[in-house]
Amino acid sequence: MALALALGQRGQGRCWPNPAVGCVLVQSERIVGRGWTQPGGRPHAETVALAQAGQAAEGATAFVSLEPCAHHGKTPPCCDALVAARVGRVVIALRDPDPRVDGGGVARIRAAGIPVTEGVCAAEAEIAHFGFLSRQRRGRPALTLKLAGSFDGRIATASGESRWITGPAARRHVHALRARHDAVMVGGGTARADDPSLTVRDLGMAHQPVRVIVSRRLDLPEDGVMARGAGTAPLWLLHGPDAPADRIARWQNRGARCMVVQPGADRQIDPAACLAALGAAGINSVFCEGGGAFGASLLAAGVVDDLIGYTAGLILGAEGWPGLGAMGISALNQAPRFALVETRALGDDILHHWRRRALSAPT
Amino acid sequence: MALALALGQRGQGRCWPNPAVGCVLVQSERIVGRGWTQPGGRPHAETVALAQAGQAAEGATAFVSLEPCAHHGKTPPCCDALVAARVGRVVIALRDPDPRVDGGGVARIRAAGIPVTEGVCAAEAEIAHFGFLSRQRRGRPALTLKLAGSFDGRIATASGESRWITGPAARRHVHALRARHDAVMVGGGTARADDPSLTVRDLGMAHQPVRVIVSRRLDLPEDGVMARGAGTAPLWLLHGPDAPADRIARWQNRGARCMVVQPGADRQIDPAACLAALGAAGINSVFCEGGGAFGASLLAAGVVDDLIGYTAGLILGAEGWPGLGAMGISALNQAPRFALVETRALGDDILHHWRRRALSAPT
Ligand SMILES: NC(=O)c1ccc[n+]([C@@H]2O[C@H](COP(=O)([O-])OP(=O)(O)OC[C@H]3O[C@@H](n4cnc5c(N)ncnc54)[C@H](OP(=O)(O)O)[C@@H]3O)[C@@H](O)[C@H]2O)c1
Ligand SMILES: NC(=O)c1ccc[n+]([C@@H]2O[C@H](COP(=O)([O-])OP(=O)(O)OC[C@H]3O[C@@H](n4cnc5c(N)ncnc54)[C@H](OP(=O)(O)O)[C@@H]3O)[C@@H](O)[C@H]2O)c1
Repeated sequence: MALALALGQRGQGRCWPNPAVGCVLVQSERIVGRGWTQPGGRPHAETVALAQAGQAAEGATAFVSLEPCAHHGKTPPCCDALVAARVGRVVIALRDPDPRVDGGGVARIRAAGIPVTEGVCAAEAEIAHFGFLSRQRRGRPALTLKLAGSFDGRIATASGESRWITGPAARRHVHALRARHDAVMVGGGTARADDPSLTVRDLGMAHQPVRVIVSRRLDLPEDGVMARGAGTAPLWLLHGPDAPADRIARWQNRGARCMVVQPGADRQIDPAACLAALGAAGINSVFCEGGGAFGASLLAAGVVDDLIGYTAGLILGAEGWPGLGAMGISALNQAPRFALVETRALGDDILHHWRRRALSAPT
Repeated sequence: MALALALGQRGQGRCWPNPAVGCVLVQSERIVGRGWTQPGGRPHAETVALAQAGQAAEGATAFVSLEPCAHHGKTPPCCDALVAARVGRVVIALRDPDPRVDGGGVARIRAAGIPVTEGVCAAEAEIAHFGFLSRQRRGRPALTLKLAGSFDGRIATASGESRWITGPAARRHVHALRARHDAVMVGGGTARADDPSLTVRDLGMAHQPVRVIVSRRLDLPEDGVMARGAGTAPLWLLHGPDAPADRIARWQNRGARCMVVQPGADRQIDPAACLAALGAAGINSVFCEGGGAFGASLLAAGVVDDLIGYTAGLILGAEGWPGLGAMGISALNQAPRFALVETRALGDDILHHWRRRALSAPT
């Protein structure tokens, strides 16, 4: 099952809206088939593994990191494929909470007389499928917020110089994290100030995550890197109901997808509504790279699941720009708290990863 | 030698102005004597180890983490004690740059016909004796600056609440670091705002580091914890030439030691002059706990050797108080840079330790 989970990770960031599943077929202690959800979400892991095993699948044990699907989508259900291949036993980590599956896959396999073991490496699978489970259970993708700064929490000097505070190893790590998420998101301020490309570079990746910009009135640079790249990597713009129609049209002509999101109480776009919209569009995981105002708003809304910090050993002082904007916190017990997952050296910098809490299963 | 270095660490923080030396006597692969510099700086490590070994010292190899002293201080020179005990061989890590020693100890032992090996574990000894070497070579103690804050680099909420951002493990670590330094230092602002005790607590320590407050005109609370505790743990006040004489007299009456330090260009007390004064008074290592203004001033003056960060997984937002004050840095290449020594989890928080650079030996 550990191998199935590891294989599943290979699909991470590129098979949305489907979960990144891994499958291993074992016949008399020999691996006869391995598979993971393919780019675009199909074929599924089980299909790939069964094809690889061929006749050897008969009587084999199938380890699958998530319950095999039971519904006819664009492909026939995987539970039927496993039955047809006459596997001897199926071991799954977790049930798929998708209402079209949710025990249905397990039931159909058992109905065919094949024993199913559930819950193997369930805790690991909860983490591996965190984004997909989040979308199924909470109707929104998992959200990771990144902050890179100086020892004293600054992201630029008073004059705005920020290249480079962290080193190449940290920047490469950011690209790897982009690649592992379905979407990369920034606020309108960062888009205006930096016109960022938000693409995955130097990792030999053909696949690009969806780039998401959140800007109420689409007051964005229309002749820069972002606009020109709209054709090469998907660009989605989340805007408010009052965004000018001509701007929407121009962005759509460039290949961008524009989605209306309702504002919250402060007339800014509501962070929870943004995530709901992305979830409805099939996005399982989002990597937000700021900026400070938008990041603070996501934290204040309580929708950040994972925090990734990169800290450099350099001091910028209080005139430097803060990494996060105002939060309106007066008492310490109002401050959002995260638990440490990991800290380690990353080139000359440190990486620290924090997590809000485990996503609890529905009761 | 590794053992001698480790033993030497036991004296750290309590044997200034002397170096915290360790000594191990080995006779036919058996340890016959172990010693380290005792509280107050005497007896020396060699004396302790020789006393423990007794007759067994004859012909033994003495491993000493720093060159044995060659001058008559309050005790006779250790090099003579080793010769008198007729050890067979002496191995040292480093020469003692104290002008009264500086090769003299090695020379006298060799003159007595006892072979001396130098430079064993020299790099480790440079680190272990960093503070003492700093005072000998640069005329000032080693300086460690501590900063504890939130994920976004804040040390208190807008309303000033700061207890507790970091957890008990980080606070215990701070007490352990205080105990390992000869002095603990804060700026006048922290003394006024917090009236801190700055003592080592809950570690079963009888010994207390010297507490140092830096305040130009000694505008400090005179009826609080700090003032009352002046008798129990040493309290030194570094003030400018314009501090009122009556305040100086009152603090001296309470048992505090007052030292005049010249101001710098900005009329604040000059950070380098503070350290020079502490070095002249025999302090080898200083642990500075802020606050933000004084810490920034130390960093700007380029006198910080080690940075210790404690970061909690909680967010305070831009209205929170910054951990470091203004630095006057506009370009990134003016920002002081530190190299990572270590990062690790400490309870619910992370510890990160950075070092300016190795103290280079004089050429
Ligand atoms: N010159 C300076 O002193 C200074 C200081 C700090 C930062 N900066 C620059 O500004 C850039 C980022 O600034 P920032 O931190 O303001 O940018 P940001 O967080 O990336 O973007 C903030 C913008 O996002 C949009 N937004 C949509 N929904 C939001 C929500 N719920 N909460 C907050 N914002 C929401 C708004 O733009 P719409 O109005 O388009 O909706 C808002 O102005 C940095 O990269 C830096 O280059 C400059
Ligand atoms: N209310 C607020 O908004 C707010 C904001 C931040 C912090 N605070 C509080 O203030 C406390 C610390 O403030 P802080 O960061 O200003 O205190 P600090 O760094 O501990 O002390 C600054 C003081 O140190 C003295 N000093 C001596 N030489 C100096 C030098 N070279 N550079 C700088 N200062 C030197 C000066 O006091 P003398 O005049 O005595 O020489 C100076 O005012 C915190 O603990 C917190 O409680 C309050």
